[in-house]
Amino acid sequence: MQPSGVITITTDFGHKGPFVGVMKGVILQRYRDAQVVDLTHEIPAQWPPEAGFWVRRSYRYFPPGTVHVAIVDPGVGTERDILIIEHDHHYFMAPDNGLLGRMLDHADGALIFRLDFSALERLNIPVPSNTFHGRDIFAPIAAELAAGTTTPVAIGIATDTWIPAWVDEPEVRPDAVSGSVMTVDGFGNLISNIDAHLLESLSQPVVQVAGRKIPLLTTYGNVKPGEYLALVNSFGVVEVALAESNAAEGLGVGRGAPISVVAKET
Amino acid sequence: MQPSGVITITTDFGHKGPFVGVMKGVILQRYRDAQVVDLTHEIPAQWPPEAGFWVRRSYRYFPPGTVHVAIVDPGVGTERDILIIEHDHHYFMAPDNGLLGRMLDHADGALIFRLDFSALERLNIPVPSNTFHGRDIFAPIAAELAAGTTTPVAIGIATDTWIPAWVDEPEVRPDAVSGSVMTVDGFGNLISNIDAHLLESLSQPVVQVAGRKIPLLTTYGNVKPGEYLALVNSFGVVEVALAESNAAEGLGVGRGAPISVVAKET
Amino acid sequence: MQPSGVITITTDFGHKGPFVGVMKGVILQRYRDAQVVDLTHEIPAQWPPEAGFWVRRSYRYFPPGTVHVAIVDPGVGTERDILIIEHDHHYFMAPDNGLLGRMLDHADGALIFRLDFSALERLNIPVPSNTFHGRDIFAPIAAELAAGTTTPVAIGIATDTWIPAWVDEPEVRPDAVSGSVMTVDGFGNLISNIDAHLLESLSQPVVQVAGRKIPLLTTYGNVKPGEYLALVNSFGVVEVALAESNAAEGLGVGRGAPISVVAKET
Repeated sequence: MQPSGVITITTDFGHKGPFVGVMKGVILQRYRDAQVVDLTHEIPAQWPPEAGFWVRRSYRYFPPGTVHVAIVDPGVGTERDILIIEHDHHYFMAPDNGLLGRMLDHADGALIFRLDFSALERLNIPVPSNTFHGRDIFAPIAAELAAGTTTPVAIGIATDTWIPAWVDEPEVRPDAVSGSVMTVDGFGNLISNIDAHLLESLSQPVVQVAGRKIPLLTTYGNVKPGEYLALVNSFGVVEVALAESNAAEGLGVGRGAPISVVAKET
Repeated sequence: MQPSGVITITTDFGHKGPFVGVMKGVILQRYRDAQVVDLTHEIPAQWPPEAGFWVRRSYRYFPPGTVHVAIVDPGVGTERDILIIEHDHHYFMAPDNGLLGRMLDHADGALIFRLDFSALERLNIPVPSNTFHGRDIFAPIAAELAAGTTTPVAIGIATDTWIPAWVDEPEVRPDAVSGSVMTVDGFGNLISNIDAHLLESLSQPVVQVAGRKIPLLTTYGNVKPGEYLALVNSFGVVEVALAESNAAEGLGVGRGAPISVVAKET
Repeated sequence: MQPSGVITITTDFGHKGPFVGVMKGVILQRYRDAQVVDLTHEIPAQWPPEAGFWVRRSYRYFPPGTVHVAIVDPGVGTERDILIIEHDHHYFMAPDNGLLGRMLDHADGALIFRLDFSALERLNIPVPSNTFHGRDIFAPIAAELAAGTTTPVAIGIATDTWIPAWVDEPEVRPDAVSGSVMTVDGFGNLISNIDAHLLESLSQPVVQVAGRKIPLLTTYGNVKPGEYLALVNSFGVVEVALAESNAAEGLGVGRGAPISVVAKET
């Protein structure tokens, strides 16, 4: 695989303090011309599933050969492993804590490795701290992968197991698909884990959330300001919005709420 | 016009989720060496005037040939047009919803185009989603403009009309200029749409806002901590501050509040 | 010193408005291929010590020859000086208001200059505004330093004095070290100014904060979720955390709170 020189970073670090900045510093120490892109740093603290959801849904919008680093890591400094994956012409790095579990369930042909910590010394990476592997392990390795100066196979041990995802797959029945709200965006839109292709067998689907039935339309402008609508969003999953307002506040629900799509007659 | 390879992005997307990040990914897919700069992503949701205000006041601080993309787009996926503008040695792209209305009112000689959606296919841009034109239309076109591989005239249809700005121009009388608070910055300073040159005929101008008269001075350090002051700020408009504190909280007003500058004797 | 072409920016500007963005614009006007990294823009408004703390603790993670710009500047537009420093193979720029005071106390061999404002004209920098020196002075000079087109000695006047740091050094006694909480990170961890090397003479050290004694361990995973722990963090200072939760909220304390490390028997 030809690296693109692009690295994305997804974390729950927020924007207070220099934590993401010093990761970029370490990357630039090893690869001055890296293009580093923040995917988001507002993953809820210690909640890997949302990071995995966004990485899985976003990576294809980057050049082939991009390195995607995702760090939501309550187990930092303990025995947990670090996964390095080559899949669909992209590299991925994350703690083995379920973050990438759902992507791996669907990643036929992915090459999956556990970081061999003895490789750190070969790459001249100093002994890491116990509490900031983003800076001390992920950043320098991402830089080397992005620069093409190392490869997953050179620093990892092949594996075919991983910690599973924390959120269940949607349940599919003939007349309904039941899933979860995975995240709420800055507009208050509820974004679910129900993939559009799961709806194919439903006739005249309607979305149910917070005790309401909401029509499935194509874009926000299809209803008047102040009305609810559902749609298959630009990442291919079912989303609920309140036109020109905030659905999460209006409905009083958020991350983790049950959401279903049902055939109209049920 | 010689492109600089620099692209700025201004949105109301906030920092939750990968929305700005995937726009950058799409840019880098087409132009690996773009320099992409975030102007701000904290425009109030669905409020184009503030985005237009900041783009108009900020663009000149970027290299000539920069592409400025601004997306506050409640009408995404409906029939609204996309404007592509060449003005004062910079490119601008925004939905035709008033966002750039005020800049265009003052942009003598600007070349203004409506995006010809049939150009997407010629640029190998996939069929866009209904809900995320930032990623699917703005980002790839900005990349092509910044790389110099297309031009506004090649992908647009010339026009001389646009949706007007949502906020009125300040009203100018011999003894007073009346405008609006356009935005509040992170320090709580109230930033108005009253341009310094409108004050030229006023003798000993004083600022009125929230029922108070506030002296017009030159910098924050001219008063003691805890005192109000007004000044012509570094973007050329009247601003009200509370030295070493938060004027918006102190005065209990914010975006949209009326603000005037009056001759002292009135 | 060979510049790296990398510039870091640390401010209290927040993310509302285009303030950081236009600084980057001005940098790119002078140096198109600069790598500009945000350290953080969420320093508490008008509180230089936190900016200085993070710059001092972070700079070594960037390539040698990086320019670190830090702006928390209540005195902008008044007579305050601007310091330009060469230290440990890095450049630093900040208002002379105590921001870099603590770093300079420990910076043996640093070359310290006050900006000679007459140098602005020589560098073709326009007359600055009174209120935004980040854009009008710091950004263009940082660009020139990073590009290697000027040097501190060419634009500054050597000095060996500076405004002192606003927060006291920790007090070291044989059986206790007493310091302050300097900042709280996005997880709610309390980060102190107590450097690990100050603890060397303490036997079985225990941390005291908010009326509690907290054990000093090595990583978050050493306790169960919901338990407090202290550790020497990845920046070399004492930190207090609440495993998988928020210590600042749990303890009801924050920035400025007293914190000590004591020998166990006291």
